[in-house]
Parts: sequence; structure tokens; C-alpha cells
Amino acid sequence: MNADARIAVDAMGGDEGLAVMLAGVARARRRFDGMRFALVGDEAQIRDGLKNHPNLTAASSIVHASEVVGSSDKPSQAIRRAKKTSMGVAIDLVKRGEAAAAVSAGNTGALMAMAKLSLRTMPGIDRPALAALLPSLGRTDFVMLDLGANTECDARNLVQFAVMGAAYARTTLDLASPRVALLNIGTEELKGTDEVRDAAAALRDATHLPMTFAGYIEGDRLSFGDVDVVVCDGFSGNVALKTAEGTARFVGDLLKRAFRSSLRSKIGFLISRPATELLRGHLDPNNHNGAVFLGLNGLVVKSHGSANEVGVAHAISVAAKMVRDDLTRRITDDLAHFEQEAVA
Amino acid sequence: MNADARIAVDAMGGDEGLAVMLAGVARARRRFDGMRFALVGDEAQIRDGLKNHPNLTAASSIVHASEVVGSSDKPSQAIRRAKKTSMGVAIDLVKRGEAAAAVSAGNTGALMAMAKLSLRTMPGIDRPALAALLPSLGRTDFVMLDLGANTECDARNLVQFAVMGAAYARTTLDLASPRVALLNIGTEELKGTDEVRDAAAALRDATHLPMTFAGYIEGDRLSFGDVDVVVCDGFSGNVALKTAEGTARFVGDLLKRAFRSSLRSKIGFLISRPATELLRGHLDPNNHNGAVFLGLNGLVVKSHGSANEVGVAHAISVAAKMVRDDLTRRITDDLAHFEQEAVA
Repeated sequence: MNADARIAVDAMGGDEGLAVMLAGVARARRRFDGMRFALVGDEAQIRDGLKNHPNLTAASSIVHASEVVGSSDKPSQAIRRAKKTSMGVAIDLVKRGEAAAAVSAGNTGALMAMAKLSLRTMPGIDRPALAALLPSLGRTDFVMLDLGANTECDARNLVQFAVMGAAYARTTLDLASPRVALLNIGTEELKGTDEVRDAAAALRDATHLPMTFAGYIEGDRLSFGDVDVVVCDGFSGNVALKTAEGTARFVGDLLKRAFRSSLRSKIGFLISRPATELLRGHLDPNNHNGAVFLGLNGLVVKSHGSANEVGVAHAISVAAKMVRDDLTRRITDDLAHFEQEAVA
Repeated sequence: MNADARIAVDAMGGDEGLAVMLAGVARARRRFDGMRFALVGDEAQIRDGLKNHPNLTAASSIVHASEVVGSSDKPSQAIRRAKKTSMGVAIDLVKRGEAAAAVSAGNTGALMAMAKLSLRTMPGIDRPALAALLPSLGRTDFVMLDLGANTECDARNLVQFAVMGAAYARTTLDLASPRVALLNIGTEELKGTDEVRDAAAALRDATHLPMTFAGYIEGDRLSFGDVDVVVCDGFSGNVALKTAEGTARFVGDLLKRAFRSSLRSKIGFLISRPATELLRGHLDPNNHNGAVFLGLNGLVVKSHGSANEVGVAHAISVAAKMVRDDLTRRITDDLAHFEQEAVA
């Protein structure tokens, strides 16, 4: 990693508070050598919190911001006082080249609005999208977008998301021609909304792009490694992502109940515990935390509002890897080769 | 059950073929005393298939239909030849009072279109919705609708789904004032689409209805017993339902891999097997199969296209219980009390 690279962290955002954010940063710091941080927020509180993390003191500078974006603030309101908020100041550090990426666990809508206004979208992209790498039974994780930044999307947005998602998969998953599918409620051509069908028609014709369009995918096949990139509007993407998280927890709870149901099953549980612990780790959303805004002239990572210390550290690692891989430039280059034909 | 009540079964629909449909009917027959069936489809094939199910012969009559609706037929095409298809004839038996309910595993869009055209919607209802009872950690299952009948919905549709879903929960779950929530991508008032926000405003004002409006619910809370009825458009509902099914299977597969990962965990698995088998049964979608079209003047149940014998039997049991409970009349009565104020 570039010795000058530092990551701006909105230390005040998120439901879990400053202490969890700082603990997450400290944990990530131990993993990435030479990583430095701009901790943005209330200076006195951050200075106080840093006493628990001596490994951060030398690697961090504090950038004061007096206000915090609330979880129910409207994006339009948040934007007006952006320059006073920890979220807005963190993004501004990226814009001014003083940080290589920004990480925030605050209000998604406000983060999207501020990031778009400050960093602007890449050439050929109308709207940024929130993307994440999610676990599957396939050889690699898969990319899913949009996960909630754009409640409603037209066919043109969906096509752009496909192009950006494929570029992200090429750079982070090292795939030459990622398999891209549109999320739909059936696999036959005539299924779904006009937007989804029109996007499919455009992608079917775009055979010059370095991706393999794989048609539609339904919710029950997401985790099975059939495709590398899943494209959808932010409403259904957010519903799918959260339903998957909730169902994994639901099954885990049922499993716990099942293991507790008899002495015999309790004994079986104790014996097989190392295996089930591995599974628990694999499914814990904290181990997949950190969604990326694709399509901006700068790196912004959204950490889940309720992520714990492990989750925050993971989101920061996502940002650190993108900085190391110079993701924005690589996606811009990738899009430049294909945008004129693809983004019609 | 009324001695005259019989259920019309589209014996030809579904991906698994006639043999699985008949095996499912035979299995359901063993559970419901006095239940009779009209088996609709190719007479020679059905007669041949019945040789394997002697318990069905006396309880069934065969109603010949020469054509089958294909899984990729457009609803508009299917409707034109409805009277020749097994699906259309099964629905027609309900319309003419010769069957108390129809069950089909065929093309959802065609089933919806045919059922709506033939049976018509209840007074005050613009569009029927597909509803199912889904498992949760709460005291009872919960009702979710729409699961795929209406790809796009306006606020008025969503309000009507809430009223129908609440009526279904009152009659099938025996709840006086079901807790009803709208599926959304956040719980704050300003989240989501205009349609969802407008529906929320209408439901918040409808305090005279025998339901408790609980605001928004996110995908990660669906299975935790927070609410009794979840209302959404058919696109996101179908995505959520299928994502939940797929995630449960994904976790099951990971668990299998984990148990196989060492001798120790294999032994633990064998010991706790009765508990994990119980869990497997609880999560198998076949044990929750059978979605109901609410809002029609007649009972129509959709069985999943890939349901096995157990799943088909479950869908038929859903129909049988609705017939026994006289669900259509009870929902019509329930709606009549409230429709004028609610469906504004």
C-alpha cells in the first residue's frame, strides 16, 4: 500500500457508537501494515476514545466535525449541512485528495447523496450503485448491486449497474468475463417488469462487452455460484440481501433449538462444535460487511449501521483493498473501453 | 367437511408431471376423510396413473381436458384456449359450483389471469394477490402477500392486500387484530417508494379496521414473529420468498459440508441427527407449499411448480382447510364490514 494512502473514517456514524468504530479501526490497523487514518468527528470524544487504542495514535490524525447525520435525516437536509458533519467531512477529504477512501456506517441515503454531489459520477454513469461481495457455494463470492442506493431504476440504470458490476468482478474477483444476471421473478423471457425486460434485451445485444450475460436469476439461486454478478434495483436488492441475512439467522436459531431439544442432540452438538463454529463465522454478516459505491470518482464504503467491531474492521479492509488495487482508476479505464457502446 | 365438497386438481400442471400430482392427491386423501377430487387433464393418462393409487379411484372423477398451459406461455395466450386446458377447466369447475376449490402447479401468470377472468374479484378489490403462510419463530406462522401475482402495485393495491391479508390471518390464524406491516428497505417514515409511503399513510389513518398497523418491516425481520401479515408488491415479495428458500438451502448445504469436514464432526452429526432431521423438515418448502389467491369469488391454490409429492399434498390440504373453514365467505363478510372506509 502507498505509504501516503490514508482512509477517512466517519467515526460518529452508525448505531453502535464511536467506541465500536474505533475498535474496528484498531482491528483493521493490525491487519494492514502502513495504513493510516483520518478519524472524523468530535475531536474531544475521539481523543478520549483513542486512549483505549495505543496502536492507532501514531497512525491516525483527528479531523474535527461538530455535527452528525442522524439515521432518519432526509438526504436533502443532510446535504445542506454536509460540511459540518463527520460524514460530509470524510467524503470531502477524498474529494480533496487527502484521503484515498471514506468509510461510514451512517444513513445510506445521506451518504449516497453527499458522495454523489461531492465526488460526481464517472463518465457515462447516471447513478452510483451500492455493491457488495456476498458468499456463495461457488468458487468465489459474487457481486450484487444495487443494494439500496436507488429505490427505483430504469432499464438504462440497470444496464450501467451490469457494466460497473462486471468491472468490479473483473478487478476484485479476477474474472476475465464475469457471468452477469438480472434478478427477476422467473427465468422465462417475458417475466418481470418492463425495466428488467428492456435491460435484458440491451444486455443480450451487448456481446462486445467483457461479460457473459446469463439472463435472469431468481432469489432461490443467488447463493449457488451460478453467476458472478447479480443486478437489480435498490429496493429488491435490499429486500433480497436483508432477507438472506434474516433467514441465515432464523435457521441458526432453529438449529440452536434443535440441538437443545434432547440430551443426545446436546452431546452431538458439543462434539461437532468446531464445525458449526466455522459455519457461524462463514455466515456472520460482519464477515461480509462493507458495501462499495460504484460509479463515483472516488472510493466510498458503507459499513452496516449495526456492524460490530469485526464488521467495521471488515468494511475498512474492503476500502484498504480497493485503495491498494486502485479500483476507481481500473473501473474507469474498464468503462472507458466499453461505455460508448454499452451505455446507450 | 361437507360431503359434497370436492377439489378440482389440475393434474397436468407443474414441472414434475402427472405421477407426482396424483401421488400428492393420494397422500392428501389419506389425511382428509370424505374429501373428493375432480382430476382434470388427459383422461387416458390419468386413468393409467390411477392404477397406482387404489385409494383415489372411488374418491375421484376424471374431467377430460386435451391441452396443457406451458410454463412459458403468455397469460394472454393461455386465456384464449382456457376452456381446453386442464388449468382452465379446473377453475371453471369452481365457477360452476362443481368444485369447492381448484389446485394447480402450472404457470402462475396464466393461473392468475384465468382465475380473475373466470371467478372475478370480490367487491372492493381491484386485483387478487397470492398469499402464503410462512414459518417464523413467533407463536404462529405469518401471512405474506403478494408473492408474485402483481409485478407492480400502487398504494391502493397495497392497502387492499393489507385488508385481505388481515382477513386471512383472522380466519386462518384466529387472531382478533393481526399486526400488519409493509415490506420496506428501512423502518423510518421517509424510506421506500411513493407507493409504499402512500399505503403506509392510508393504513395509519385506518384505525377502524380490525388490524394493528405496525409500520414497515425489513427483510431481516420477516421470520422473527414481529408481525402477522407482511404486505408487498409481487416482485419484491417473490424475491423475498425465493431468497429465503434459497438461503435456507444454502445454509443447509454449508452445514452438511461442515459436518463432513472431520471425523469428529461426522460423529457429532450422527449423534444429533434426529434434531437436524426435525430442522430439515421444518425448513423444507414442500411443508409450506400452497399459496392462495386472495380476493376472488372462489378458492384457487397455487402449488409450486417443482413441489414433490409431499408438497402437492400440502397444497391440497391448504385448499381443503379453506373449504372446511368457508374462507371465501368469511373474507367477503369481513371485507364487507370494512371495505367502504378502507379501500378509499
